[in-house]
Amino acid sequence: MKQLLVAAHGSRRASSNEDLSALVASVTPNLGENFDGVSAAFLEFASPSIEEKLTELFEQGATEVVVLPYFLSAGNHVVRDIPNIVDSVMSEFPGKKVNLLSHIGAFEAMSGVIVAASQLAKD
Amino acid sequence: MKQLLVAAHGSRRASSNEDLSALVASVTPNLGENFDGVSAAFLEFASPSIEEKLTELFEQGATEVVVLPYFLSAGNHVVRDIPNIVDSVMSEFPGKKVNLLSHIGAFEAMSGVIVAASQLAKD
Repeated sequence: MKQLLVAAHGSRRASSNEDLSALVASVTPNLGENFDGVSAAFLEFASPSIEEKLTELFEQGATEVVVLPYFLSAGNHVVRDIPNIVDSVMSEFPGKKVNLLSHIGAFEAMSGVIVAASQLAKD
Repeated sequence: MKQLLVAAHGSRRASSNEDLSALVASVTPNLGENFDGVSAAFLEFASPSIEEKLTELFEQGATEVVVLPYFLSAGNHVVRDIPNIVDSVMSEFPGKKVNLLSHIGAFEAMSGVIVAASQLAKD
């Protein structure tokens, strides 16, 4: 049982966290057979925390969780904080697997979003 | 003459700012005829600043600049800081036009990046 976890920073603005949850929900029908589900978690300011969600997914039977850091640049949260959280949870679940992806800003597909956004600019 | 300006936060890590500049450069061939060019600018920690770049584009003959805030969520930088910078520069250039887009996290195409990233996860 393989799950995708989108790990975002979290915001003091509830609407911003709700936007992310809605975005993640919109991903579900397009994930294909590789995943049994997708959820969101937050580093700060919102719940569930990454630690809580990762723990919950394992307790609910996930054997592998693919973690996608939802950050545009590789700052300390990406380089240090999220890996530390993953390591901490993993130490409680021997036999489970986490696949920690690059932060979303590192994917070439971001180039397409910039182009798509620019084309929506009204004259 | 219409230009696209990708307005990012900027990082203390030079490599992160260079990654953004490379990403923006990769966009150039795909912008199509709507734009005469694309460039990056930063709110903090890196140069050029958004104010500097916007001023430069107008001084070099741009009649319209489409500004794309390169932020995943609508925090204070998106809601307050970038609009304030745009307003400040615009007051110096009557007759020029700025089209301030939504932050990149608001575009539906982000859903596709999450899916694309997840499919790159190795088993």
